[in-house]
Amino acid sequence: MGRKHFHGQVVGTTLNTITPCAACKLLRRRCAEECPFSPYFSPHEPHKFAAVHKVFGASNVSKLLLEVPEGQRADAANSMVYEANLRLRDPVYGCMGAISTLQQEVQSLQAELHAIRAEILKYKYREAASFISSQVSIPTNANSQ
Amino acid sequence: MGRKHFHGQVVGTTLNTITPCAACKLLRRRCAEECPFSPYFSPHEPHKFAAVHKVFGASNVSKLLLEVPEGQRADAANSMVYEANLRLRDPVYGCMGAISTLQQEVQSLQAELHAIRAEILKYKYREAASFISSQVSIPTNANSQ
Repeated sequence: MGRKHFHGQVVGTTLNTITPCAACKLLRRRCAEECPFSPYFSPHEPHKFAAVHKVFGASNVSKLLLEVPEGQRADAANSMVYEANLRLRDPVYGCMGAISTLQQEVQSLQAELHAIRAEILKYKYREAASFISSQVSIPTNANSQ
Repeated sequence: MGRKHFHGQVVGTTLNTITPCAACKLLRRRCAEECPFSPYFSPHEPHKFAAVHKVFGASNVSKLLLEVPEGQRADAANSMVYEANLRLRDPVYGCMGAISTLQQEVQSLQAELHAIRAEILKYKYREAASFISSQVSIPTNANSQ
């Protein structure tokens, strides 16, 4: 009270009264300028905050964001959204399920690569052997002439 | 009060007064028989609950555990510990960093496999071509004799 209003914002705490961020909208709280969520959770993508809120909880998201340097907070917020969506899709294994699937894929590709490298060695050996035998047969013919 | 004590347990709520689980130890609360954490967070591995507590928060861990069937809760707890440790090790990218590294590894292995398959085709083609030319040269000699 007693604060001057200017274009829907309260001078001093500067409220985003027109477009509160997705977090403040969900949590039904005032979205002040210093809101830790507003730079990373746009009101146009409410599902992003809904996901991190469900998995990590609002206070943990805010704590995790504030623990990283400001220039990396957008990446941290996005990775939390990604992680939360994986947990919501697979409540038992979450991102560990995705990591385990990828690790199996890497192992199977490495095994395939190992086998195909052995095959190519066989071809290279056969080619070298046929080249040597062709080189060896010339002097033999030359002597017989 | 008024409850009968039996071997360190309060009959009725059955407290684990001798060995409270890692969660109840950290949260300094009574570890009752119906404790949602005790089957999954042994007091001998306190770092496991400490990690999930830091990243997800105790109430979210309990909520996430109760949302999956009982037979899968141990797996869910372990995957949460795994995920939390990745986030603590890499606060910006967490498990998304691990997933992205593995995806790049899969792509690079697939590219290598693709290249080596093309190389093997070249060998097969050369071998087939030299076989055909050796077959073709026989009738030519036969005609000239």
